[in-house]
Amino acid sequence: MLITITTDFGVRDGYVGVMKGVIAGIAPDAPCIDVTQEIPPQDVRSAAYVLWTALPYFPPESVHVVVVDPGVGTARRPIAAQTSWGTLVGPDNGVFSYVWEAAPPTLIVELANPAYRNAAVSSTFHGRDVFAPAAAHLARGVPLAEFGPEVTDPVRLPAPLLAVTESAIAGEVIYIDHFGNAITSIGRLVWDGALLSLDPAFGNAPAGAIDAERVRVSAAGRDLGPIRRTYGEVATGEPLALVGSEGLLELAVNRGRGAQELGLTNGAPVEIALR
Amino acid sequence: MLITITTDFGVRDGYVGVMKGVIAGIAPDAPCIDVTQEIPPQDVRSAAYVLWTALPYFPPESVHVVVVDPGVGTARRPIAAQTSWGTLVGPDNGVFSYVWEAAPPTLIVELANPAYRNAAVSSTFHGRDVFAPAAAHLARGVPLAEFGPEVTDPVRLPAPLLAVTESAIAGEVIYIDHFGNAITSIGRLVWDGALLSLDPAFGNAPAGAIDAERVRVSAAGRDLGPIRRTYGEVATGEPLALVGSEGLLELAVNRGRGAQELGLTNGAPVEIALR
Amino acid sequence: MLITITTDFGVRDGYVGVMKGVIAGIAPDAPCIDVTQEIPPQDVRSAAYVLWTALPYFPPESVHVVVVDPGVGTARRPIAAQTSWGTLVGPDNGVFSYVWEAAPPTLIVELANPAYRNAAVSSTFHGRDVFAPAAAHLARGVPLAEFGPEVTDPVRLPAPLLAVTESAIAGEVIYIDHFGNAITSIGRLVWDGALLSLDPAFGNAPAGAIDAERVRVSAAGRDLGPIRRTYGEVATGEPLALVGSEGLLELAVNRGRGAQELGLTNGAPVEIALR
Repeated sequence: MLITITTDFGVRDGYVGVMKGVIAGIAPDAPCIDVTQEIPPQDVRSAAYVLWTALPYFPPESVHVVVVDPGVGTARRPIAAQTSWGTLVGPDNGVFSYVWEAAPPTLIVELANPAYRNAAVSSTFHGRDVFAPAAAHLARGVPLAEFGPEVTDPVRLPAPLLAVTESAIAGEVIYIDHFGNAITSIGRLVWDGALLSLDPAFGNAPAGAIDAERVRVSAAGRDLGPIRRTYGEVATGEPLALVGSEGLLELAVNRGRGAQELGLTNGAPVEIALR
Repeated sequence: MLITITTDFGVRDGYVGVMKGVIAGIAPDAPCIDVTQEIPPQDVRSAAYVLWTALPYFPPESVHVVVVDPGVGTARRPIAAQTSWGTLVGPDNGVFSYVWEAAPPTLIVELANPAYRNAAVSSTFHGRDVFAPAAAHLARGVPLAEFGPEVTDPVRLPAPLLAVTESAIAGEVIYIDHFGNAITSIGRLVWDGALLSLDPAFGNAPAGAIDAERVRVSAAGRDLGPIRRTYGEVATGEPLALVGSEGLLELAVNRGRGAQELGLTNGAPVEIALR
Repeated sequence: MLITITTDFGVRDGYVGVMKGVIAGIAPDAPCIDVTQEIPPQDVRSAAYVLWTALPYFPPESVHVVVVDPGVGTARRPIAAQTSWGTLVGPDNGVFSYVWEAAPPTLIVELANPAYRNAAVSSTFHGRDVFAPAAAHLARGVPLAEFGPEVTDPVRLPAPLLAVTESAIAGEVIYIDHFGNAITSIGRLVWDGALLSLDPAFGNAPAGAIDAERVRVSAAGRDLGPIRRTYGEVATGEPLALVGSEGLLELAVNRGRGAQELGLTNGAPVEIALR
């Protein structure tokens, strides 16, 4: 059974290697795949976004272990959750919120059973001592209910802004990728020729279609024009809006770093004027 | 069957993890190895060099998927090519040119068959939707000819400069590695005691041998002395030329960042005076 | 048999991918796990620390290949060593010193047998040509004694400073992690409620216990207060000392980069006043 690993540990210190060593000792046949170890430090919201984009592409029986955990060593609970996108393992800090919107948890438990932890649990490295062992035991087939009591009140992040009226769609930047593209909460937009149908991912959205070539996108006080199909539709260095690979409206600069050049940070407002 | 992955995606956003998830869903027993995800963004030429250095060291039945793809979403073709260095999967933008010099393709096809793509193909993430599925199906044994029509006119990069006269060898910098070493087009040089025999990799070169201790290397207006055997032959901070691990002439600074300190960028001229 | 890889190669150039390709050609069933490829360039001491923290968490039959090798191409010997923490493969430059303190080698050999190297050995990339093939053959079960003559005088690093008196414990910074936390030679401290019992890792230490809430830690001319249990015990931006996940005293700034903000570098002195 496949295990994926997502952390903010970086790859410099060997912390992720150690987690894989712990897993190999418990579940030697479980291959480990890095989703990313480069979540911005302690940025639970960016992690929630990355998981939401990545997890649907893995086999549904996978185990996904996530350690973006500013509260390590405090009373926050370690949890595991069963969903149709796989079994999720990590801290109870809202990091699974966006996944749960699409794949609601059928059971969440607290990782309380000492039989499925390392013999000694440090107060700073639960990735090694709590989460990696839990993921490995889950991959070996230990039932979720064995790990501890049910959790009925998991922490959830607030939903990203998505407000739709007859004349406009308002949203916000929810992630800035390593190319500098600013990904927004507007979508999930389904591209179909020149038409965009709004398929609500994070909130309410109208049925029907909008005309990508007629709408105007604006952000950071700039008019970014209509919704484009590819980066190459504007000149090098020019900003644009397009539908990214996740089906979300994305703000970019052709061959540039859009977020930095446009002055966009996480949470910045964006709007599509529909007429 | 082993699959390698080479991209300019970086490891921050989970894009490469997603490609591995897609592969795991189609070919769960195919291990994935990262060649690198840190090709400079959209730098097809650097990717071509890295593939040329790396691919001979993998089992010849491997599948190598490459996504350095400035033309994603445009009309550029996705292709796969059979060679003695493995099956190559990626965009038709010349990224395989250097490999093909050493291992000519016996069949190239366009990845046109929708049966071997994701159900929905985005216009910005063909790594996930086109190339990863193709690699996984190839690793499972689907014949190359099933993927689409033959391509007879693939895009090729121009050959790097390599001009040889009786008195000098002229070349250019073709790659700058993460240590700051500037790797040149001069070679493939075969080290044998004090002798260098030129074994042409990218162009014409004389038979016979040159005397590494008597020639003079110059670049960026600097005399770098004869060809050395190890970095330690010059003092810390001093520049030198030596034969790198790929058999190519390399310009470095002992315990320094040669390219940056010497002011060398990709394409910079370098010369060996033979007498 | 699992193989781990630790280098200062970075992940940009494909060098580590090439090592995995060589391994896959010799031992196709041996999974490779990255400990880290981001050891600071040629920093043998940091590598020694990372190995000491990571290797106990891998199955004891693992093969650990390490290439942090400023002396590549010189007369330094390539070696392999049998220990209770696995079989170690790398240059004879002291990189295994800290591991050997905890897991003394039962046999060390020089990797001299050409049957277990690549056919051509470059003078700059022994990771590919010497160490990766050795690791793969070891993983396939070739006995250590087959690789070459016994080494009885391996290079060892000096032990980190750890001096204990009735009134104080003096140590030094031995590693700065990617969060900017400064990890010290003081420990291995075993956390037990408010008590710290010193368990000597690198030197002599007293039996008995100290009172974490009463001692005062100082470094870089600053009083860092008592030993805390979690980062959150001090305000954002404030410095603190705590026992890190390896059981060593660690100097940090809550939600900051402690080493940089406190001006601490490798080797900087740190002291615990006991009364």
